[in-house]
Amino acid sequence: MADKLKIGVIGAGRIGKIHVENIARFIPQVQLEGIADIKLSDEQKAWAKGLGARIVSRDPQDLFKDPAITGIIVCSSTDTHADLTIAAAEAGKHIFCEKPIDLTVSKVKKALAVVKKTGVKLQIGFNRRFDHNFKRIREYTLAGEIGRVQMIKITSRDPAPPPPAYVAISGGIFMDMMIHDFDMARFQAGSEITEVYATGAVLVDPEIGKAGDVDTALVTLKFANGALGVIDNSRKAVYGYDQRVEVFGSKGAAQAENDRPNTVKLSNEAGVTGEKPLYFFLERYKGAFIDELISFADSVLHDKPVAVSGEDGLENMYAALAAGTSLKEKRPVAIDEIRTQ
Amino acid sequence: MADKLKIGVIGAGRIGKIHVENIARFIPQVQLEGIADIKLSDEQKAWAKGLGARIVSRDPQDLFKDPAITGIIVCSSTDTHADLTIAAAEAGKHIFCEKPIDLTVSKVKKALAVVKKTGVKLQIGFNRRFDHNFKRIREYTLAGEIGRVQMIKITSRDPAPPPPAYVAISGGIFMDMMIHDFDMARFQAGSEITEVYATGAVLVDPEIGKAGDVDTALVTLKFANGALGVIDNSRKAVYGYDQRVEVFGSKGAAQAENDRPNTVKLSNEAGVTGEKPLYFFLERYKGAFIDELISFADSVLHDKPVAVSGEDGLENMYAALAAGTSLKEKRPVAIDEIRTQ
Amino acid sequence: MADKLKIGVIGAGRIGKIHVENIARFIPQVQLEGIADIKLSDEQKAWAKGLGARIVSRDPQDLFKDPAITGIIVCSSTDTHADLTIAAAEAGKHIFCEKPIDLTVSKVKKALAVVKKTGVKLQIGFNRRFDHNFKRIREYTLAGEIGRVQMIKITSRDPAPPPPAYVAISGGIFMDMMIHDFDMARFQAGSEITEVYATGAVLVDPEIGKAGDVDTALVTLKFANGALGVIDNSRKAVYGYDQRVEVFGSKGAAQAENDRPNTVKLSNEAGVTGEKPLYFFLERYKGAFIDELISFADSVLHDKPVAVSGEDGLENMYAALAAGTSLKEKRPVAIDEIRTQ
Amino acid sequence: MADKLKIGVIGAGRIGKIHVENIARFIPQVQLEGIADIKLSDEQKAWAKGLGARIVSRDPQDLFKDPAITGIIVCSSTDTHADLTIAAAEAGKHIFCEKPIDLTVSKVKKALAVVKKTGVKLQIGFNRRFDHNFKRIREYTLAGEIGRVQMIKITSRDPAPPPPAYVAISGGIFMDMMIHDFDMARFQAGSEITEVYATGAVLVDPEIGKAGDVDTALVTLKFANGALGVIDNSRKAVYGYDQRVEVFGSKGAAQAENDRPNTVKLSNEAGVTGEKPLYFFLERYKGAFIDELISFADSVLHDKPVAVSGEDGLENMYAALAAGTSLKEKRPVAIDEIRTQ
Repeated sequence: MADKLKIGVIGAGRIGKIHVENIARFIPQVQLEGIADIKLSDEQKAWAKGLGARIVSRDPQDLFKDPAITGIIVCSSTDTHADLTIAAAEAGKHIFCEKPIDLTVSKVKKALAVVKKTGVKLQIGFNRRFDHNFKRIREYTLAGEIGRVQMIKITSRDPAPPPPAYVAISGGIFMDMMIHDFDMARFQAGSEITEVYATGAVLVDPEIGKAGDVDTALVTLKFANGALGVIDNSRKAVYGYDQRVEVFGSKGAAQAENDRPNTVKLSNEAGVTGEKPLYFFLERYKGAFIDELISFADSVLHDKPVAVSGEDGLENMYAALAAGTSLKEKRPVAIDEIRTQ
Repeated sequence: MADKLKIGVIGAGRIGKIHVENIARFIPQVQLEGIADIKLSDEQKAWAKGLGARIVSRDPQDLFKDPAITGIIVCSSTDTHADLTIAAAEAGKHIFCEKPIDLTVSKVKKALAVVKKTGVKLQIGFNRRFDHNFKRIREYTLAGEIGRVQMIKITSRDPAPPPPAYVAISGGIFMDMMIHDFDMARFQAGSEITEVYATGAVLVDPEIGKAGDVDTALVTLKFANGALGVIDNSRKAVYGYDQRVEVFGSKGAAQAENDRPNTVKLSNEAGVTGEKPLYFFLERYKGAFIDELISFADSVLHDKPVAVSGEDGLENMYAALAAGTSLKEKRPVAIDEIRTQ
Repeated sequence: MADKLKIGVIGAGRIGKIHVENIARFIPQVQLEGIADIKLSDEQKAWAKGLGARIVSRDPQDLFKDPAITGIIVCSSTDTHADLTIAAAEAGKHIFCEKPIDLTVSKVKKALAVVKKTGVKLQIGFNRRFDHNFKRIREYTLAGEIGRVQMIKITSRDPAPPPPAYVAISGGIFMDMMIHDFDMARFQAGSEITEVYATGAVLVDPEIGKAGDVDTALVTLKFANGALGVIDNSRKAVYGYDQRVEVFGSKGAAQAENDRPNTVKLSNEAGVTGEKPLYFFLERYKGAFIDELISFADSVLHDKPVAVSGEDGLENMYAALAAGTSLKEKRPVAIDEIRTQ
Repeated sequence: MADKLKIGVIGAGRIGKIHVENIARFIPQVQLEGIADIKLSDEQKAWAKGLGARIVSRDPQDLFKDPAITGIIVCSSTDTHADLTIAAAEAGKHIFCEKPIDLTVSKVKKALAVVKKTGVKLQIGFNRRFDHNFKRIREYTLAGEIGRVQMIKITSRDPAPPPPAYVAISGGIFMDMMIHDFDMARFQAGSEITEVYATGAVLVDPEIGKAGDVDTALVTLKFANGALGVIDNSRKAVYGYDQRVEVFGSKGAAQAENDRPNTVKLSNEAGVTGEKPLYFFLERYKGAFIDELISFADSVLHDKPVAVSGEDGLENMYAALAAGTSLKEKRPVAIDEIRTQ
């Protein structure tokens, strides 16, 4: 294998820009070869050229056809992920695809089948596994410091709700927000979720309720290894992005607290005050966005399994769908019920 | 009303001794008049006399008949609580009764009916409402700092499991352990629980499973005011008694961490290490045991409502029973289903 | 030796009351026999009787003459400490004396000489050695966790300044306030102070300056074992009583943070806010006031050396005097220079 | 002024590489034009070319002569700083010079005189002013949250001592290590140091003592505005780089704790353990190295005063020299005594 992963990026929106700039700044083992975006503006074109992209195009085919490119990063709009993944796989390119692969199970399965057949590597962008805090907890577990994992608790709250219009097309809170937490839960448990029970409420924005979703949710999990888990989500925590994980086991417990912009505490007559958590995912998961691509490059360059597979993406989706069913039907739902639908 | 509450204590076991010694040391507004214990030993007798008890007896009737005594503390064995409460009420005494009033709803209801009819005050020993940390959270909520309460999270783990034999007669994890957390949840929510969903597992001690109980449990709550909640229990946290509460709302969140024996941190090559939490409830809720009696005395002496009523005891019991049903039948259970049984 | 230390207390002011009530509540190995106070009020008399004092008098001689009494607690006004210590020693009583023994070295030396000659035990009320936090640091050092002690840092700030009039007669900031910190420094170092250098300023209250004292001070220490140290004092920290100690050594460092009334943190748009430290010494050193008397009783009852000796009191005084000289003469001052004056 | 600061870097050692890579990755307003290093290796040459340097040379003159270059970063060996600063100034280039400008006052003064005469800007590399934690404290002070500053406490300890040979030529602990803390003290005080008193000891490595230096030091400061201060240094803290600052004033206090690699705490039978501080200055002051250059670029591009001037460098040096004299002569030393030498 070459010593550099030569990459083409599809989608030059917010997340695409982050990946491209991370590659340029921090990931010497990845070389940017091309960028494709269906709506490519002049500004984007200049930016891509400035970063050394050899191919700058509106057509992803220009990347697929290029023989030098060995890897594709898919960060276009969600509805194109599955088709682009399929096309990239058929072109023999390794793929890093932003989550979710698709909002429907059948399309995801179809994409995974093509990936399997073509033998390319596929990594899904569940970046939080690479977070410095959460990774440390997993390391403690793997080192035996936690003993047998008995309970996993995940708090995951956004600083501000998305527009209700977004909620309507995103698949809802379980599919666009808690899906990250399902992935974290599975990662920390080292085991699959077997059953979920979901409660939810509209407490933040009535418009979200009108759009058919909840904005506050609490989901109980059971894992194949016998552990229990709970995830809570809120679309709005006024104090900022609240991202905490706790793993409890027979020999100990590990807890990750929020990151803050600095460590200063101000003591005065009102109390002792420290900073709020980092504002949102761009700040909090800054390092994780870099490390997931380094991990992807490492998998491709040294032929190792990817850290987050297409099957992980599918399992997370099953959990989200099961939570949706549970909320609607007010009963616990086995993942197998969804898997075998 | 007199300026001192003259009290008779029934039961000179562990918790009875704590109450009596707290009264002697810290509660000048309560005067110990008598102690009754069915198995009164010579040692207990000497101890009771030494603390100034005028009546020391094996027969609670000696307390009920004494005209100077206006209040009774019931801390004998659980199976006697309801009958002693009824007898005390019929004797016109105000009652502080350790939890639970009884393990059966019918006996509890019968006791509450007598209390109501006689017009005496009845406070139940859910002492954690008086904990310095949890009380502070409630104060923040009442002061409007939390805004509308949206989610309540309670972590409650014991340092070591009870003998399996105890579990068999205690009513199980929901009735002997989580019942405190149901009370805390209702206290923090300022609202009744309307539905629970319980999961559980035997992860600590297989003997507990053989005794028909779980040792690890996670229960989702819905409250009448729309808030959601979750309680997790484990019979064994190797690092000690883990007692944390978090209340999340539209304007902020308040979190209570564990208390520790000291604030010292040791920094060395291995990391930065602080003390474990205080060992168990006697250490952690030391102040709360005192403050609940001060509150009871205040209610009686100044004719105020008690802080934890018999109805609170009953509601907590409904939640525990609903959790048991939920665990057994693998479905969410409405509290009304239990209330109207 | 008897199994109880029978005690007479001289001085029924604030600190005397604390000692007496601590004995009554928490120290079964000490029995209160008598209380003497030169200005004994009717109220004090009733209080003393209520707590079981057999002798209640205006004359300390009534305690000294009583054959049942084996120990005396001196907590009258500072100017009487030395004479009462001498009288108690001559009466063959063991003595717990509040700090300072006197404000002049010659009187202290005279008192210590009598104590030595009579062979009674004398403990001085430097209570902070018994603080749960600071004691834990010393335990770490003794257990070898710190390695060789290299630096000691003590922060000690009061919530509010005393009246300037008090400052004028108290001996000033080094003698009435930092003397506690000199004792802490010597305790933590396990070594004597050999030299001090003091800086100071009037930053809190100009009246304190007019009274000839400073209200803010920073003193550098050298210890016989080669360690360095620094103490800072302020008469006014708006956020409350700031009492922190840090010991740094070749194998690690231990740091004690302030105690707070509860562990709750409130997160909102303004930040994450916790409670201020406990207000002042009565709250912060509550346990230490009890434990110093338990330790004294243990020394007497089991014929062990006292935890804080008269010589400790004298050494602390030397340090305070040296600091005063240093501040005045703007030069480092060797303790030996003071010792041999 | 141009919209980009075109820069030449002198010195491609450790710190030079950091600056160059920071410019390439993070500082779009600075454009790397050239790199000069007297010992330029082939590897360095390739690296410089790879980062887009137009001029890669062994001779700094190639940078001074280039008309496109408007700024010079001096990060060659210390003994060349003053001469290169003078040469750059005479070539009309703005200068960012690593600390110290020189180890002798006369050469520093000479360099500053040339800088003044030529009117170029000169910023000195005291990067800690840009640290996210310490900057936040200063912001609190400037916002009035601290009130009048009364005391400044700085803890600054390295994870491991330099080789004794380094100590011999570096100017010693005050000149190579504490000089950063003098700068921090002046920055936080917003006022000049007027007097220092230094104590020190050889507690870490006897070889350092043989080289004529101490490895542990404690320095008391007085500021022109009346505040007091203290800095402690150790060449070796086994738990890592200990960098803390506390500013105490009439309205409150602000404290910065160490940064850590993650927020995870592991609770087990041994206690509750978190990570050690970030290892050393490259990790801890990563962001500060970037932000000092952004600030320099901003000063040049928008003709603003630099954040850390040549005079700051000189004042810090006076403090270091005064501390050396104080340690040697065992007396407090006024800065004016050094200034007017």
